[in-house]
Amino acid sequence: MISEPIPEPGEGEIVCRTIYLSLDPYMRGRMNEGKSYAAPVAIGETMCGGTVSQVVKSCHPEFARDDFILTYGGWQEYAVTDGKGARKLDPAQAPLSTALGVLGMPGMTAYMGLLEIGLPQRGETVVVAAASGAVGGNVGQIAGLKGCRVVGIAGSREKCEFAINEMGFDACVNHKDADFRDRLKSVCPDGIDVYFENVGGMVFESIIPLLNFQSRIPVCGLIAHYNDTGLATGPNLLPKLMRVVLTQRVTIRGFIVSDFAHKQGDFLRDMSQWIGAGKISYREDIVAGLDNAVDAFQGLLEGSNLGKLLIQVSADPTR
Amino acid sequence: MISEPIPEPGEGEIVCRTIYLSLDPYMRGRMNEGKSYAAPVAIGETMCGGTVSQVVKSCHPEFARDDFILTYGGWQEYAVTDGKGARKLDPAQAPLSTALGVLGMPGMTAYMGLLEIGLPQRGETVVVAAASGAVGGNVGQIAGLKGCRVVGIAGSREKCEFAINEMGFDACVNHKDADFRDRLKSVCPDGIDVYFENVGGMVFESIIPLLNFQSRIPVCGLIAHYNDTGLATGPNLLPKLMRVVLTQRVTIRGFIVSDFAHKQGDFLRDMSQWIGAGKISYREDIVAGLDNAVDAFQGLLEGSNLGKLLIQVSADPTR
Repeated sequence: MISEPIPEPGEGEIVCRTIYLSLDPYMRGRMNEGKSYAAPVAIGETMCGGTVSQVVKSCHPEFARDDFILTYGGWQEYAVTDGKGARKLDPAQAPLSTALGVLGMPGMTAYMGLLEIGLPQRGETVVVAAASGAVGGNVGQIAGLKGCRVVGIAGSREKCEFAINEMGFDACVNHKDADFRDRLKSVCPDGIDVYFENVGGMVFESIIPLLNFQSRIPVCGLIAHYNDTGLATGPNLLPKLMRVVLTQRVTIRGFIVSDFAHKQGDFLRDMSQWIGAGKISYREDIVAGLDNAVDAFQGLLEGSNLGKLLIQVSADPTR
Repeated sequence: MISEPIPEPGEGEIVCRTIYLSLDPYMRGRMNEGKSYAAPVAIGETMCGGTVSQVVKSCHPEFARDDFILTYGGWQEYAVTDGKGARKLDPAQAPLSTALGVLGMPGMTAYMGLLEIGLPQRGETVVVAAASGAVGGNVGQIAGLKGCRVVGIAGSREKCEFAINEMGFDACVNHKDADFRDRLKSVCPDGIDVYFENVGGMVFESIIPLLNFQSRIPVCGLIAHYNDTGLATGPNLLPKLMRVVLTQRVTIRGFIVSDFAHKQGDFLRDMSQWIGAGKISYREDIVAGLDNAVDAFQGLLEGSNLGKLLIQVSADPTR
């Protein structure tokens, strides 16, 4: 870590202190050159990241000292911003940290991908991987609210139990079990109507034979491949996928949450209401100290956390 | 071939003489066991197929002797049918054979896949393989009418020249050329917005790196794979495709023409008008004699014909 003096705000700027830094899989893409859904962060720049921050100095008409805001403060203790894209948070409405999780980007990713692309119908089977993660847990719970059979895939027995017991999944299978494919098939006796894709790799390959007629696959992540450096070894499963796409009339569609920015109001309204009514629960995994962000991020990519991963960069005065 | 007496119609049935038999790539799937978009034809049954036929005997209130009809007479000289799914044809409106081509299933496949899934916008680049075939030629021409840049892919110089000179494609590249990938890239300087997928294989693999942001891929066929018997050898290109789906927000959707049966009226209206106005041209490749159907069909799968392939089973009294 590099230490610099706390900056001063210029005209129209604010300086804010980071309380929570969000760690999310998409960040891996910013750490490489090459095409991804966002431009890479250059070496020497501050690594980007969503934060809940508190204003410490303001020369901006819309933000006052001590305001809590959702912003992109990045991996640092203090940030200067012109306030563009920042949103004020009311700690009386919801815990500040939820603005980075269930009421933030991961929650909205689940909501938009499932409802706008997955189009789940009552009685259908919805499968989501990384079921105990910040996105997957919400996908499963929202699908449950829509009357679907919800099947999770996760990487340990503990995570599977968490998905079933705390997130209300109907079933959850461990992709590290030797008989994973058989187990997946047995918990999807009517096939799969919606597969919410956020991992790729062997898990996706196991889904393909179970896809139903006119099934839908929203694709928001491929965490299994973020560290790939070349082409995967064979056999080539592309023709197999395309055959199923054709014979089963599957729709596959990639998206990121900002594609649906114009519907953020719907998301905040519905999700707040569901949380308030006890219909959606969430888990946070809060790691203290910016010094631990690199290790925590590596753990995230390796699947070692449960729920939404946050770094507590400084104290949250509201709890 | 097996000879049997000409059948007699029962109550509510007609007997019809086959004039034209349509040969289409989808038939390959009916010749195998295993899941495809239609049930396989059993050994010993008559191979299915769309036909233009003439009624020779009728015990059906809606069809009279000598009527011309579009039906599924199959690979035989005479067929008995209850008339379900049959449609009367008026030879004064369009040549009878066009009911199996430009005004039939292949034309409607092009129309629906392109317009309902491809959603081409003026100025976009639309790419279609099998550009000189019954579906591809129509995809290209309809895309041209919508103001798109139209690029074909075909398997010979002759076919490419046909696509450019007779179908009005802006460019067409030969996938058998050693520098095919470079040529494809050079004729798509702004990338690809719509790829109409009907072949699969190496051609599809070459498309992937050129896909634009929010591009669309209607999938109606995979002719390169219809004779596959196992998994393709590596490298595994599935992760590569999914990465592009994610970063470019691609939509891939499988369909068959009957998914859009409720819009057949739109198709017949538009296509008849375009043909009448000289905006859509078509080519037929008519092979005489049912005895030649097997060879002609093998040729179709190997890419040896140009335009819509038909078998002339008996004389067409209207020309």
